[in-house]
Amino acid sequence: SQTDPEAAVACAATTKECTMSELRKDPLVGRWVIVATERAKRPSDYVSEEPVEPPDPARNPFAEGHESQTPPEVFAVRDPHSQPDGPGWKLRVVPNRFPALRIEGELGKEGQGMYDKMNGIGAHEVIIESPEHAATLGKMSDVRVADLFFAVRDRINDLARDPRLRYMLVFKNHGEGAGATLEHTHSQLIALPVVPKRVQEEIAGARRYFEFRDRCVYCDILQQELASQTRVVHRSAHFLVIAPFASSFPFECWIVPLRHAAHFHLSPPEVIHDLGSVRRTLVGKLDKTLEEPPYNFVLHTTPVREGELEHYHWHIEVAPKLTRVAGFEWGSSFFLNPTPPEEAAKFLREAEGA
Amino acid sequence: SQTDPEAAVACAATTKECTMSELRKDPLVGRWVIVATERAKRPSDYVSEEPVEPPDPARNPFAEGHESQTPPEVFAVRDPHSQPDGPGWKLRVVPNRFPALRIEGELGKEGQGMYDKMNGIGAHEVIIESPEHAATLGKMSDVRVADLFFAVRDRINDLARDPRLRYMLVFKNHGEGAGATLEHTHSQLIALPVVPKRVQEEIAGARRYFEFRDRCVYCDILQQELASQTRVVHRSAHFLVIAPFASSFPFECWIVPLRHAAHFHLSPPEVIHDLGSVRRTLVGKLDKTLEEPPYNFVLHTTPVREGELEHYHWHIEVAPKLTRVAGFEWGSSFFLNPTPPEEAAKFLREAEGA
Repeated sequence: SQTDPEAAVACAATTKECTMSELRKDPLVGRWVIVATERAKRPSDYVSEEPVEPPDPARNPFAEGHESQTPPEVFAVRDPHSQPDGPGWKLRVVPNRFPALRIEGELGKEGQGMYDKMNGIGAHEVIIESPEHAATLGKMSDVRVADLFFAVRDRINDLARDPRLRYMLVFKNHGEGAGATLEHTHSQLIALPVVPKRVQEEIAGARRYFEFRDRCVYCDILQQELASQTRVVHRSAHFLVIAPFASSFPFECWIVPLRHAAHFHLSPPEVIHDLGSVRRTLVGKLDKTLEEPPYNFVLHTTPVREGELEHYHWHIEVAPKLTRVAGFEWGSSFFLNPTPPEEAAKFLREAEGA
Repeated sequence: SQTDPEAAVACAATTKECTMSELRKDPLVGRWVIVATERAKRPSDYVSEEPVEPPDPARNPFAEGHESQTPPEVFAVRDPHSQPDGPGWKLRVVPNRFPALRIEGELGKEGQGMYDKMNGIGAHEVIIESPEHAATLGKMSDVRVADLFFAVRDRINDLARDPRLRYMLVFKNHGEGAGATLEHTHSQLIALPVVPKRVQEEIAGARRYFEFRDRCVYCDILQQELASQTRVVHRSAHFLVIAPFASSFPFECWIVPLRHAAHFHLSPPEVIHDLGSVRRTLVGKLDKTLEEPPYNFVLHTTPVREGELEHYHWHIEVAPKLTRVAGFEWGSSFFLNPTPPEEAAKFLREAEGA
């Protein structure tokens, strides 16, 4: 199957066409949710006991030579003599064949009694990070990992021209335990007409801190972590990698640019090159310390319609999936972390072969 | 092993004594996290490939006749001729042998540079819902399920006398997919010196709504759902069960009391009796529709130090675990729900044998 994890969630697995969707707002906490409204999953879709088929390399739509199995590429790093949507590439960005949101149509917002909703306008793209099925970011070269971030920068810049879109959510689910259903290494970008709640909360919290102290909270975190060193995992020319003080998950890490910057997509090339190296180093350290764990990766950056905020600082959050399902945490936002970040940082700092 | 899911998270699985813990506050979004600070889990604890042992009934600490394997009970529903911590009970509440938080000591709050923390004061109790290993709430009688809520009411009332405690978080992880590691049916109560972020957010959102409209948002939700009926799953004398408009998860349900009430633990007996019946009916409907899915259950009630708030309304949230791990959702609080709540409600409403 050519479905992609989150897209598959939004589509009935058995249909060729994508479901339609809408965005609905929780009236209590203000969170927007994408809800499938057509061809939605029925109970039998959840309880089927069909064995998972082992991936069939001949049907892997992300492999080199299989370009016709994806929609036409919107970005690629490829051999200058190669043709778009043909072989000869190192990285491709393609629209998701089963998108959670669609770019066509007008953005309609409406009330439904006391509730608020809008139609599912947006974009959903897949960043295929390597033509090779077995590649992982930890084993790729720094330059190849930097390509991923150049691709993300380019795609955000392009999508930002659409005035309906407010946020580009970039993430990776690596490994089945972290929600990936397609093994071939890839990241995803969902362009949204709303700002994800978690990012809104961070920006609001950072604004309160700034009002109180007249300093960026992330810049203060950098200063305190550099002074104490106990939670530092890695330092490069442009980045600090830390295990955050109040980590929700064991071995959670943040990659934070040392110089204040609100928008990832305005980063200069030398910063993006360095980020490729830092990201590869961190994945290598996690792979070494935790035997190639599944993990989630999310880019937190300023919404594209905002200016160069003094109080918000883009960064990347990485969390290996080591504990079982976060059970009651869903209903309380209350977490139990069995490994202090100081211990996690020490193990990761000392991990070689990265 | 006698460890319990969340307790096991907070303790090294191999130690007999519990780890010490502390509460740390995220400097951005204000979320408190329990972090183990002693005997914490090391990388090898996560990557061990030891096969999970099938549960040994002789070593099940929650079975009747095994009362000496738990700490002394703090509440029980038992035969009037039976002795505490002996057989002859229908329900027992015992302190967790490996608590995430401990009741001993003074509540110390302190800064660490820019960060905030306090020591891990609190309580962690297990509510053993039946003496029988194979019991599930869906198959128990209404009266037995009501006992669970009478136990919760009693424990909250008792713990509320400790002025250090602000919130009693009551939850259930049912099934391995929802985070349970011990099969014998049980719920948990964690008494906290802080209010969980999700509950804080709901109360703040409900307050804003009240300021705007001078009405409780949950009372308005009840009115709109009763008028439209499309998301109603079940109605009893005292409760409405709905699939919420902006459900984050497929088949998510809320149990909401029809009459405004801020505090669960002040509910009169007839309401608690009815809740037992409603809860059992809902689990029966989920079991029938989704073939006994794993699920999480969380009670959202007003913090015990607050009065009878006009704007907040206690309720219960239930979410079956049907989709894979909520991957990037962790980092964005952005959810994709593949089943519209109107469809979910229809299936559950029509499910018989409940």
